[in-house]
Amino acid sequence: MLGAATPALAASVTRVGGIGFIAGGTKFDALDKVVQQTVSLLSSHDSTPQSSHASDNVKPFGIGFQNWGCDKDVAVQIVRKHLPAIIWMYAPKHTSDFGDWARAIRDASDNRTKIWIQVGTVREAMDAMRAARPDVLVLQGADAGGHGLAQGASVISLVPEVYDALREGGMDEVPLVAAGGITDGRGVAAAIALGASGAVMGTRFLAAEEAGIAKGWQKEIIRVTDGGVTTSRSTLCDRIKGTVGWPAQYDGRAITNQGHADARNGMTDEENRRLYQEDVKRGDDEVWGTSGRQVVYAGTGVGLIKDVNPAAEIVMDTAREAARILQRHGEMFSKL
Amino acid sequence: MLGAATPALAASVTRVGGIGFIAGGTKFDALDKVVQQTVSLLSSHDSTPQSSHASDNVKPFGIGFQNWGCDKDVAVQIVRKHLPAIIWMYAPKHTSDFGDWARAIRDASDNRTKIWIQVGTVREAMDAMRAARPDVLVLQGADAGGHGLAQGASVISLVPEVYDALREGGMDEVPLVAAGGITDGRGVAAAIALGASGAVMGTRFLAAEEAGIAKGWQKEIIRVTDGGVTTSRSTLCDRIKGTVGWPAQYDGRAITNQGHADARNGMTDEENRRLYQEDVKRGDDEVWGTSGRQVVYAGTGVGLIKDVNPAAEIVMDTAREAARILQRHGEMFSKL
Repeated sequence: MLGAATPALAASVTRVGGIGFIAGGTKFDALDKVVQQTVSLLSSHDSTPQSSHASDNVKPFGIGFQNWGCDKDVAVQIVRKHLPAIIWMYAPKHTSDFGDWARAIRDASDNRTKIWIQVGTVREAMDAMRAARPDVLVLQGADAGGHGLAQGASVISLVPEVYDALREGGMDEVPLVAAGGITDGRGVAAAIALGASGAVMGTRFLAAEEAGIAKGWQKEIIRVTDGGVTTSRSTLCDRIKGTVGWPAQYDGRAITNQGHADARNGMTDEENRRLYQEDVKRGDDEVWGTSGRQVVYAGTGVGLIKDVNPAAEIVMDTAREAARILQRHGEMFSKL
Repeated sequence: MLGAATPALAASVTRVGGIGFIAGGTKFDALDKVVQQTVSLLSSHDSTPQSSHASDNVKPFGIGFQNWGCDKDVAVQIVRKHLPAIIWMYAPKHTSDFGDWARAIRDASDNRTKIWIQVGTVREAMDAMRAARPDVLVLQGADAGGHGLAQGASVISLVPEVYDALREGGMDEVPLVAAGGITDGRGVAAAIALGASGAVMGTRFLAAEEAGIAKGWQKEIIRVTDGGVTTSRSTLCDRIKGTVGWPAQYDGRAITNQGHADARNGMTDEENRRLYQEDVKRGDDEVWGTSGRQVVYAGTGVGLIKDVNPAAEIVMDTAREAARILQRHGEMFSKL
């Protein structure tokens, strides 16, 4: 969500009781600027709730880092300077990096900045717990858009299996947050039924008014239906963009387009990349969509997204719908 | 589930208020015998509930057919002779086959046998509705074990997207049943939160006492954890077993074993098949497990299954857990 998760998006989510996140990236100055903008947006609104994440004088939002490509010292400097409520991390080169980062961030914040770690398997969950004792585990299922494990379960079995494994290992005090394919209140209610304490939405916020993505990308998010077949997992997007360094077990889910079709039909990466770069230079509407080549990361829940809305509306609608679903079924089942 | 779904399994599920299913297969005589056994098991128990599926004098269980490989006339003859409550179908060569089968079965049963159709995408759901107006749509997500679509979403986004598409198309009277990765009451509660009226479990019943599978297979179901990474989707199992005829978009999810590892490392199908057949002939314990070659179909929920239990216990525990979860969260959210 680097670029997409703007200060305005994070601030809007936090302002209505969610937890907004911005993406850490690799450079201190760029991140420092984004954090300052977010802080200033939040402080300019008297309506910002004094929610629980705002205790200890921490700033009421989080920052996400891909450990493998990011600099721990940048994260530590940002934490020292701004004291964000949460540092979220994932995709380390080695699991032990979770421990190193967590220690450094806790030291820098006097234990006030909380550590969220995102994993995609039971093994990763247990390893992350042992390495870093995170304050929250984010469980990313195979339906998620963008980067994630090339192979894994969806949240339907991942959440309960991790829940049970943690309980068996005496580590069930850690709250679980589900991610991947969750796009509205139904998904959030399902996550809670599965044993999660909350849910993360990424793709849904690509269709927020505050999202920092190209209009062509956002139009695709609205246009595409049947997300399980119109998106697919592949390393193609990294290959044509020339992104190197993701640990071997990762790929990314994106809307399948001409680049994917050509790759399937045997086109070399070199040629695919050249055509992609031409499209990027052209930059018109034609480069988006199934016959285009622009990378459009999206999860399988993309087919549920029909409109671009203010982020605050997305958060409130989702929370209300989830609560209503759980209330209604609770009433039904209490009569049995 | 051909072979696995024994008369005893189906009868046990039905007896405690679920809906037991047997697999249709291709031969009239074999199926006729299995149906007779199921009927006789159910009638020998006075405790069989006079549930809603037993109205119209239909037999209180269902029969599943893979349309592509099964004979419609066999299904029609069985329906005429035994009047099962449900015929479940999926994987036709052409969508129009759904219509042909549905008409023939409704004719043969005077509209008493209900038609359930299993699909895996929004497109398939809409096509099936138009072709056959099924009484129930079964939505199979990518976490399911055994055969299914090679590419698709899990139930987390598939169920709500189909729900919305049906509503938009004015066909939202059809109940949805979710399948794939659902292994206990948490999964069922999640399915209901997503908009389904119920759930199907396959892999869970492989670890029922009544399941008709090899002990080695059943031991694998109990042993394996972290189902998202220890199972994988592939056409390998069909290739080494010499199963031909599945429509091109299908593959199967099974526990990854030596055959999969060898295929990944470049072994020819011919050699892989020869080694598989040798293993099948040997038949000892060694042919199961990660270093074996026996085919062990299982969904990603396999890691949640820790014991072999009577099917009745599985059904009752699952229903009780689902109701308890929905009740508890309903109470929590009604206080907000």
